[in-house]
Amino acid sequence: MSRVFNFSAGPAVLPEEVLLEVQKELLDYQGSGMSVMEMSHRSKPFEKILNDAIQDLKDLMNIPDNYKVIFVQGGASQQFGAIPMNLMKNKKADYILTGEFATKAYKEALIFGDAKVVASSQDKNFSYIPDCSSLDIRDDADYVYICENNTIYGTKFHTLPNTKGKPLVADQSSCFLSEPIDVSKYGVIYAGVQKNVGPAGLVILIIREDLIRDDLLFPTPTMLKWKTQVDAASLYNTPNCWSIYICGKVFKWLKASGGLEAMKKKNEEKASILYDYLDQTTFYKCAAEKDSRSMMNVTFRTGNEELDAKFVEEAKKAGIVSIKGHRKVGGMRASIYNAMPKEGVVALVNFMKKFEKENK
Amino acid sequence: MSRVFNFSAGPAVLPEEVLLEVQKELLDYQGSGMSVMEMSHRSKPFEKILNDAIQDLKDLMNIPDNYKVIFVQGGASQQFGAIPMNLMKNKKADYILTGEFATKAYKEALIFGDAKVVASSQDKNFSYIPDCSSLDIRDDADYVYICENNTIYGTKFHTLPNTKGKPLVADQSSCFLSEPIDVSKYGVIYAGVQKNVGPAGLVILIIREDLIRDDLLFPTPTMLKWKTQVDAASLYNTPNCWSIYICGKVFKWLKASGGLEAMKKKNEEKASILYDYLDQTTFYKCAAEKDSRSMMNVTFRTGNEELDAKFVEEAKKAGIVSIKGHRKVGGMRASIYNAMPKEGVVALVNFMKKFEKENK
Repeated sequence: MSRVFNFSAGPAVLPEEVLLEVQKELLDYQGSGMSVMEMSHRSKPFEKILNDAIQDLKDLMNIPDNYKVIFVQGGASQQFGAIPMNLMKNKKADYILTGEFATKAYKEALIFGDAKVVASSQDKNFSYIPDCSSLDIRDDADYVYICENNTIYGTKFHTLPNTKGKPLVADQSSCFLSEPIDVSKYGVIYAGVQKNVGPAGLVILIIREDLIRDDLLFPTPTMLKWKTQVDAASLYNTPNCWSIYICGKVFKWLKASGGLEAMKKKNEEKASILYDYLDQTTFYKCAAEKDSRSMMNVTFRTGNEELDAKFVEEAKKAGIVSIKGHRKVGGMRASIYNAMPKEGVVALVNFMKKFEKENK
Repeated sequence: MSRVFNFSAGPAVLPEEVLLEVQKELLDYQGSGMSVMEMSHRSKPFEKILNDAIQDLKDLMNIPDNYKVIFVQGGASQQFGAIPMNLMKNKKADYILTGEFATKAYKEALIFGDAKVVASSQDKNFSYIPDCSSLDIRDDADYVYICENNTIYGTKFHTLPNTKGKPLVADQSSCFLSEPIDVSKYGVIYAGVQKNVGPAGLVILIIREDLIRDDLLFPTPTMLKWKTQVDAASLYNTPNCWSIYICGKVFKWLKASGGLEAMKKKNEEKASILYDYLDQTTFYKCAAEKDSRSMMNVTFRTGNEELDAKFVEEAKKAGIVSIKGHRKVGGMRASIYNAMPKEGVVALVNFMKKFEKENK
């Protein structure tokens, strides 16, 4: 077996320790005589997998008691619609556009009501996070929406917007569990797990209790109503059992690794190795502005498209894969999620130095 | 490793050959240096996995060119809402109620329009399939809906209803790929894969082209609009890659096993072993009426709840697990999907005989 350093933006690298455990129990989960893939979602072993996952997540994030955690399907894209359906009372919502996914979420909200852009960094191809300390939030806005970490552009909110008391809804897909956060500052946190946690096909929602309603304005499919899965403890129908199982193992791996404080330290160290190098070379340019940089997705380019393509190709030969940037930004993107070991980042920077020397 | 005979109704048993392959390539898929769980859904290896899966399914089912195949998330329950949202033009749909899931689908349709029950077997606890040769289908009904195989009650449509020209929508979750069918008789076929194909979290939809529309009557989330995933070839957002990968392997296993004709023969043989025994004993009673029996889910009981509980408990000790019936029917249920080997059914019948002898 020869593993590569996988810098994919998502689905993305998982902890090797977790994969080895999974491989071992693939045909016989802990003496049950079957794979987790074959196990009834109403069985005792799966019930324990699910309950452990939720409790471990609560522990890791220190989630207050007045928040509910649910696991749903459909990806973050499905929540783009579920959010206005579940939260709109006045049919008004204020959106901050800092990239592709925030814009998609905004456009989806327009299907349901009066969504308004209260800030945007589209003027500079989303290379920065706008100042959100004093926005024109409407008095009757039902919520304020952000995408907290922008996978494609490599930016992140380092200060949450001042929502003037309105519930903050945050898509944390690409920064979920990368560092400790204060959950009480949010109305809704949600994340597709396929970037920093587990296999694609699962979204984790953390919702403040008072935002969970039954009296929705729109004819809403039962499965999109958050209350359905809150009341059923994520078992209204068969969930993505496999992804819940892997995520649960990743939560235990995070706990054993020292929790989110330790993860933050490790992630800061990894990101510094890359950004420090980028700051002292003129060969590569970082796509994101300095004070808006993401710790998870590092975007850079040489400024020459052919050279970028050569970089991607030669990196692959060196075991550094999925490093091509998104077409909207070009160049390269190194996604260095929790499971990316420091050695991977060191290998990448060494390769970057070598490539610089050879192609300057 | 000691595998059991797993009679779970879903998630359910998978072919051991498939699981062994999956185990082997868990950390390194075919020399890619990564797990399929870690692989970008836009990468070449995953693209091949997805395209192969769709082509193999088309081959297996002999799907005509005027049908589109998409893979979506959310379970069949999510389609209960998506179906009226996508198909209603006159806000009228006619439902045939033959069990729990048909009833749920019907209730969901009521959120969106005038759903009408045109036949039902609720009068006898859904133990039979009603005669549907001459139903009162409305002239302006947008579609006629059935759940073709009823997992909980152990019944199946052996003749499709006369829909009087209206598109037939069929939930095939628990009989999908169990035998050859004539796809051209249906408007929409859909199935949650967790019963007869792969791991939970994926629904396969086979939709006649003319039923795929953009001009929906309701404010519909982009992800629930079938056209979204048809246009994006199931890659509008990150799909459940893992489940697609496993399903693809199961399709290849089905092809290598002789396709759906061979599978039908095997399934008929397995079902006969059980039903033949049930027909000649008075100790167990079959819950489903003879001419409505399912080949996939065989429901039976002793007529004594304590004895049923003892059966389930002792069966488990004998390596025959997840055989407890659904609470709505009681007794036992043996789900004998494609991946259940004949040996499992023989072992079950031998156990039933032994139990009968000891407890008569």
